[in-house]
Amino acid sequence: MATERKGLLLKADPISAAFRDEVKKDLEACSSRPKLVGILATSSAPSNNYAEFTRRQCEDLGFEFVLKKTGAALSSDLAAGEGVEEAIIDANEDGSVHGIMVYYPIFGVQQDHYLQQVVSPLKDVEGLHFKFHYNLYHNIRFIDPKSLLASPTPSASSASTVEPEEPPAGTVKSIIPCTPLAIVKCLEFVGVYNKILPYGDRAYGKTITVINRSEVVGRPLAALLANDGARVLSVDIDSIHEYTKRPRVATNPSSEPTLAQKYHPRHIVHPSNLTLEECLAISDVVVSAVPSPSYKVKTALLKDGCICLNVASDKNFEKDVRDKASLYIPAVGKVTILMLLRNLLRLQQYQQTSESS
Amino acid sequence: MATERKGLLLKADPISAAFRDEVKKDLEACSSRPKLVGILATSSAPSNNYAEFTRRQCEDLGFEFVLKKTGAALSSDLAAGEGVEEAIIDANEDGSVHGIMVYYPIFGVQQDHYLQQVVSPLKDVEGLHFKFHYNLYHNIRFIDPKSLLASPTPSASSASTVEPEEPPAGTVKSIIPCTPLAIVKCLEFVGVYNKILPYGDRAYGKTITVINRSEVVGRPLAALLANDGARVLSVDIDSIHEYTKRPRVATNPSSEPTLAQKYHPRHIVHPSNLTLEECLAISDVVVSAVPSPSYKVKTALLKDGCICLNVASDKNFEKDVRDKASLYIPAVGKVTILMLLRNLLRLQQYQQTSESS
Repeated sequence: MATERKGLLLKADPISAAFRDEVKKDLEACSSRPKLVGILATSSAPSNNYAEFTRRQCEDLGFEFVLKKTGAALSSDLAAGEGVEEAIIDANEDGSVHGIMVYYPIFGVQQDHYLQQVVSPLKDVEGLHFKFHYNLYHNIRFIDPKSLLASPTPSASSASTVEPEEPPAGTVKSIIPCTPLAIVKCLEFVGVYNKILPYGDRAYGKTITVINRSEVVGRPLAALLANDGARVLSVDIDSIHEYTKRPRVATNPSSEPTLAQKYHPRHIVHPSNLTLEECLAISDVVVSAVPSPSYKVKTALLKDGCICLNVASDKNFEKDVRDKASLYIPAVGKVTILMLLRNLLRLQQYQQTSESS
Repeated sequence: MATERKGLLLKADPISAAFRDEVKKDLEACSSRPKLVGILATSSAPSNNYAEFTRRQCEDLGFEFVLKKTGAALSSDLAAGEGVEEAIIDANEDGSVHGIMVYYPIFGVQQDHYLQQVVSPLKDVEGLHFKFHYNLYHNIRFIDPKSLLASPTPSASSASTVEPEEPPAGTVKSIIPCTPLAIVKCLEFVGVYNKILPYGDRAYGKTITVINRSEVVGRPLAALLANDGARVLSVDIDSIHEYTKRPRVATNPSSEPTLAQKYHPRHIVHPSNLTLEECLAISDVVVSAVPSPSYKVKTALLKDGCICLNVASDKNFEKDVRDKASLYIPAVGKVTILMLLRNLLRLQQYQQTSESS
């Protein structure tokens, strides 16, 4: 009965079902149909597939989706990325467009970061703009929607460890990057988040290894989980950092809390002396997002009964992962797209607020 | 008489002399002494040396310089980068500070990009904030200083091919990233820029190879040179792009100018079919900024009589470079620091404008 002892394989559909219903309901309540523009600037097959996936999901739910092709996506005579910045600016300036999604990678990490800042934060359904990362890293959950067009570091509403049901008057929820948010929603679904604990501390007691520390997935995810109380071991190619909200003994006796720390209580980060093997041995959850087909987390190193979640398009876990893992989620894309559409609905509202004020 | 045939070795001192005088004069006219805060967050020897170099230059010229050490720069018990974001935010919020300089690299390209957005653009003497890169890439030379605290993509004053002596009323000059600007000033000094040509076209007719396409040096430099009329061959590890302001035949017959192109006439970028060897063979100027001691531009490939400029801390040219080059500039750091101090003087003024309005 070897197969009976295997851990559970959990596909994203049951996780996304509740969000699907929520998004459908919110869409019905909309005065006008939200319009998402996808911008495809390369001939990459995964980007093309993801664009078609976005279209199907949008049309299925009743959102308007327009795919704008540019550069190598438009013609084999053109280079990857040609015209993509202009396409973004046109969509920023087009009042009929409520959300913008760009299919990365295009130029590579540095120039793609630049493009992510060109997308207006008021239309940034992916939550990749610096302002949203800043809010996330500083645990700023509510913002004045007008701040998305103002001050370089957004003015914060006071952070609170217990979230009220609704944002304080005059504020709205900050946008959280789609993929990290989808991962959190998966972990909520499978009970890693404990609903008995107060909001903002529901991952307290959990040790979570996150393999990848990019600005798009790994670092925002580590910050989100730590802001929710988890001990996060953030693993990258050359270092392991620990993200935690719990106080630790200051190694520098003269250090006092900075203004920022006083105003925005949030997680702290320090280097870890643990090895990857040691991290895996103590982790209740392992999330891997390494963009390489050859990278594999060794099943033998996992803690028995842990929860494993693959975010990479290539599988980062070995075939026998469920011999050790109690639960394995192989992909999160179907949850990610719903977080994106939820962001689209919110941003459409924020745009109306900004216009009317 | 082999040595007589060698090209000229030009150190940065004669180039920086004129800027030194200009900065000194402008400093004397200041109502209050500008204060620069340097933030050092690693134990890296080059960063330490550069911080001490900044201090000497500031004190020599009469600027106030305060070095704020944090993380591994403060104590060997602390990690590289620990507390650096808080130090930046404190300096942003400290009214007595006029400029902020952070010694990179700290975490690596992605997280360092994030930090560059945390520095307030009103204090960003290095010109590394997204808003300044956006202006540069769009050839927006004059900005409303208030825009540095407002709208995510700055509102442009109309671009002009002929620069007036002074910015149009209500606008100020945008800040240009220090290192690319210092390189342009070197090329102006050695006559690559032709003063007989109209402003904005003074590099017309010159072919320039730039080796490196980072967002900090190579890409902004390519854009600056192309905005000034040069044909720029931008070489990176996996591709060669051509930056130019000259029109070319559209490869896509249906493409019309975008809103952005209509509003901000600027350089265009397209992929090149040339190899590095072919680029070097036709280049009047070769700028190299590859952060590797083993990378060398082969002297044998250079066009006879070209001008070579090394920006890397390791020398990217071979010892015999002057056998082919008519002129070789081995380092630009002394010009860069003066561009930084010039930015500091300007930003101090912009801060006063923003406060009084």
